[in-house]
Amino acid sequence: MAKGERSVPRIHFHQQLDELKDKLLGMAALTQQAVESAVEAYLQRDDALRKFIKQSERAIDRAQNELDEMAYELLAKQQPMAVDLRFIVAVIKIGGDLERTGDQAMAIGKRTKEILALEKAELPVDFAVMGEFALHMTRSAVQALLEGDAALAETVRGMDDEIDRMYSSAVDSLLKLIQEKPQCTRQALNGISVAKNLELIADHASNIATDVVFWVRGADLRHQLSMAG
Amino acid sequence: MAKGERSVPRIHFHQQLDELKDKLLGMAALTQQAVESAVEAYLQRDDALRKFIKQSERAIDRAQNELDEMAYELLAKQQPMAVDLRFIVAVIKIGGDLERTGDQAMAIGKRTKEILALEKAELPVDFAVMGEFALHMTRSAVQALLEGDAALAETVRGMDDEIDRMYSSAVDSLLKLIQEKPQCTRQALNGISVAKNLELIADHASNIATDVVFWVRGADLRHQLSMAG
Repeated sequence: MAKGERSVPRIHFHQQLDELKDKLLGMAALTQQAVESAVEAYLQRDDALRKFIKQSERAIDRAQNELDEMAYELLAKQQPMAVDLRFIVAVIKIGGDLERTGDQAMAIGKRTKEILALEKAELPVDFAVMGEFALHMTRSAVQALLEGDAALAETVRGMDDEIDRMYSSAVDSLLKLIQEKPQCTRQALNGISVAKNLELIADHASNIATDVVFWVRGADLRHQLSMAG
Repeated sequence: MAKGERSVPRIHFHQQLDELKDKLLGMAALTQQAVESAVEAYLQRDDALRKFIKQSERAIDRAQNELDEMAYELLAKQQPMAVDLRFIVAVIKIGGDLERTGDQAMAIGKRTKEILALEKAELPVDFAVMGEFALHMTRSAVQALLEGDAALAETVRGMDDEIDRMYSSAVDSLLKLIQEKPQCTRQALNGISVAKNLELIADHASNIATDVVFWVRGADLRHQLSMAG
């Protein structure tokens, strides 16, 4: 078996790339779970679920460490070709964005802790829809990486405008609430922070999508150059 | 000359690493200039300076492209050792954080455009101090990379708590203002956004510092392993 591996190093290398993809997918799943828990805890004022986010965050950090370790090992030992090299660096960068997505889930957890200390107020913002939209962007961006789909990645980048509109609209609505019901000012500002956290999650998805486009286009460019040369 | 280069490839490689550092330093300078212009434009309600930020942003993007190009070329052609490999990947990631720092300068520019359409209001927040603090973090983080100074990088990470406090204090003060002078609500919320942008700039500095620590510690670890082996 070891002999066989030696005689087909490229195949072995591509198996390792697949393993790297699996690790990234696992990390993305943990991140998604953290964000879902955070939004749910915020909306349901669920303190137990809020505490669960901390656990998710630790799991995300561990997943990033494993991902980085494998990626650097592949870079160092396999002397990958330019297209694979760009892919591996993209994976490292995307791991960073997923980790920071997890940080935003933690931040929503903090906002939830704050809101639990305040009287409940009805806020005129659909955080569930906004959260689902942001997560849809994250999922699609990771999918674009796994499938090398630059068109899907471009779609994700385009969705960033929509979440920006949602955020602006949330701020406007909460501003109006503050003017009409000054007693809800703290809850409304807390809501603005949560909307900002969700917008930042979408930003990270957009960053991931940009890395995917860069990777795929870099590959295309390299391909064109090798055709020309 | 070409012959000489061939006989001392490692020296040539380290010259290229120095060039890469110079490029990063140049990009950091552009980013710093963009943030300074943005804070100044916001504080002085200076529309001409605000428009200048857009130019800086384009220069930052170009600088990042050049930086990336050189970094990927070094990764592909030089088969760097693990410590250099980690350095080059750190530079690519840090370029991303600097570019996003520039995006925050652009965002402050947008807030400035908004505020110019509103009546002037005195806000109880020292944005100049906050901006200077955030920029100090960015500068120190980049310096830590250039000098391989993990202790300085750790200091930058520690400074993140201070900017978080500044941000919380800004939000509290602006919240109080909204309650006392509801006619200043829009200006106060605009101020909260600017404070958030500055806090995010500090976050990017903290990300840069984390990459530096990871690079230097990775190098240490590698060194320990080679000692042990």
